[in-house]
Amino acid sequence: MTCAPLRLKKNADKRLRAGHLWIYSNEVDTAATPLAGFSAGQQAVVESSTGKPLAIATVNPNTLICGRVVSRDTQYTLDKSLLVHRIKIALGLRERLFSEPYYRLVYGDSDLLPGLVVDRFGDYLVVQISTWGMEAVKEDIVEALVKVLKPAGILFRNNGSGRKLEALPEYIETPWGEVPDGVSLIENNTQFVAPVRDGQKTGWFYDHRPARAQLNQWVKGARVLDVFSYIGGWGVQAAVAGAEEVYCVDSSATALEYVHQNAELNGVGEKVATFEGDAFAALKELHAGEQRFDVVVVDPPAFIKRKKDIRAGEQAYRRINELAMRLLKRDGLLVSCSCSMHLERDRLLDTLRAASRHLDRNLQLVAECHQGADHPIHPAIAETAYIKALFCRVTV
Amino acid sequence: MTCAPLRLKKNADKRLRAGHLWIYSNEVDTAATPLAGFSAGQQAVVESSTGKPLAIATVNPNTLICGRVVSRDTQYTLDKSLLVHRIKIALGLRERLFSEPYYRLVYGDSDLLPGLVVDRFGDYLVVQISTWGMEAVKEDIVEALVKVLKPAGILFRNNGSGRKLEALPEYIETPWGEVPDGVSLIENNTQFVAPVRDGQKTGWFYDHRPARAQLNQWVKGARVLDVFSYIGGWGVQAAVAGAEEVYCVDSSATALEYVHQNAELNGVGEKVATFEGDAFAALKELHAGEQRFDVVVVDPPAFIKRKKDIRAGEQAYRRINELAMRLLKRDGLLVSCSCSMHLERDRLLDTLRAASRHLDRNLQLVAECHQGADHPIHPAIAETAYIKALFCRVTV
Repeated sequence: MTCAPLRLKKNADKRLRAGHLWIYSNEVDTAATPLAGFSAGQQAVVESSTGKPLAIATVNPNTLICGRVVSRDTQYTLDKSLLVHRIKIALGLRERLFSEPYYRLVYGDSDLLPGLVVDRFGDYLVVQISTWGMEAVKEDIVEALVKVLKPAGILFRNNGSGRKLEALPEYIETPWGEVPDGVSLIENNTQFVAPVRDGQKTGWFYDHRPARAQLNQWVKGARVLDVFSYIGGWGVQAAVAGAEEVYCVDSSATALEYVHQNAELNGVGEKVATFEGDAFAALKELHAGEQRFDVVVVDPPAFIKRKKDIRAGEQAYRRINELAMRLLKRDGLLVSCSCSMHLERDRLLDTLRAASRHLDRNLQLVAECHQGADHPIHPAIAETAYIKALFCRVTV
Repeated sequence: MTCAPLRLKKNADKRLRAGHLWIYSNEVDTAATPLAGFSAGQQAVVESSTGKPLAIATVNPNTLICGRVVSRDTQYTLDKSLLVHRIKIALGLRERLFSEPYYRLVYGDSDLLPGLVVDRFGDYLVVQISTWGMEAVKEDIVEALVKVLKPAGILFRNNGSGRKLEALPEYIETPWGEVPDGVSLIENNTQFVAPVRDGQKTGWFYDHRPARAQLNQWVKGARVLDVFSYIGGWGVQAAVAGAEEVYCVDSSATALEYVHQNAELNGVGEKVATFEGDAFAALKELHAGEQRFDVVVVDPPAFIKRKKDIRAGEQAYRRINELAMRLLKRDGLLVSCSCSMHLERDRLLDTLRAASRHLDRNLQLVAECHQGADHPIHPAIAETAYIKALFCRVTV
């Protein structure tokens, strides 16, 4: 494939040379190479202002990020062959670390496949495409995955906010084999069924695996509250790891049905109870009812989606964590999570500090977890790091 | 005990109310309560500018940090009874998490015992005192530890840089029982003997326990290089966890003798080799000799001891990590550590990014570890967080 050139302005190659993969539309020398000349998803040879070829990128002429580097070697464009190569390298990392085939297999930019996410559930693969560049090669993606992994089924979960930004059509379809609605997985020795078609994102959040493994060390004999539980990732694992009683709170009745199903699957159905409702209201009600817990896990959806939400979002984190802290026994553990890329770890910790002072309790940060190795962080792309899980011991 | 008042200037109580434990000498209303009126180690009732009692602090009139809060309840001064109480709370955290008695039992400010560190090696306790406030109650410390833990021996490792700042005399002594020169410990299922009298700090670094546990997941069948190995904390554990060959580099012949002893202790003596020498020179020599490794661990002493060393220190981190990266095979793991409080995690990662670009290799941050739960972080005192361990996959 011969690619048209995409010429950068003077010095605009600096970030790419430093390792970044994105090109912003204001960095393009549009007099030399008008963006309007590209269709969404087309590939281009990125050139420095002096015409030196730097990389192959996929282009979207209509978005702020107009280019995404797929290869620094301009011999290789994004096609089935490059996809197979990249997927094999990604698989090498996961197979080195995980003995069972349940993980995020491809994590976008960090695996040098911008716009592509693949979660593996044994023989089933759930794919999310979020750029026109990847959309343009979706048949190649399916063929490459089939070649490397021989899956029983591939599901495109091509809906959600990421696609709206690129004005991509939304759809859910099965381009290969068959995929059941509920798919099995194992995480930290606990079995789950995840709703891959109807659930949040790909149906499951592999990103908190290390944090849940950490939690399992703290729950023996404990009374545990799992707030924003979704289908029981934290709560059911805690029960399996030896918690005495687990309460899962979520606003979705469907998610809570999965909590019960997943608890039963592991023989801990009797230890796990659920409350359907708004988390803030539920925590107030539990406090009024003088319920107290050894461990409270707060893993909310992103309260800060855009930079302008930071102030309001931080207040929401403060409120929910203070409500959670009030429910802890005299020597309790608060696990406070955030998946908001815009909430810095230091700000989250400071929010917890302020809440603990307000309640006149003493707080020690005893562990800190990040997204697992199947969500590697690209050292030049801050956006690839988003998960925070702070384990705080709160004493009187 | 009745304590003299230490009056703060207007608004100088704000940081204490926010959770911090330190008072700077320029925050004291020295007209009302001259610092010269205090002897080093004396206790005081800290008062707001309006005379409201806020806390009990130990005072050192001669240092920038002139007060350290030991209790927010002004009824309780620092004595045997408070020490017993605090040690029990600290022990509660460790016993909740660790099944064996090998850990940092007391970690200064974070356990509300500023100036006191206690490492536990089974029946032996190694104590480091770094403030006059703690020095003044050292008999109480011994009595409190004996009461709570009934140890066979207590060693004061009261030497080192921390004491110089406070102009404390340096000494090593055994105020209780007997303590052998080499003391046994177990970390992540590996046995060690640590030189508690002659070794670095208390003889052992419990702070990297979680990072070493993380490393153990990556070393099966691997060829591992442990740079700045000290007595083999990383290297010997890697051998026990299944590494094929381990090379430990350190400038201390004595430390390397302990490496061999510790390897033998675990039946992996044949897998572990040592190189005595300067780390920078050794890495260059290994490169010249075309030695390559699956895993390289770089855990240097603090290259940045004071803020003014930041620039030179960052360059040293860059240099040693780039040297290490050059020794990795095509798909290798670099574990890059820093115990410099002044080196921020983001700066360390950026250093690694720059090194990888310079070598035209691709870097993914696949895991990130912190000091263990026996080194809790105080949320208001940034200085209590110092350990960073970045696990980077480096591919061609």
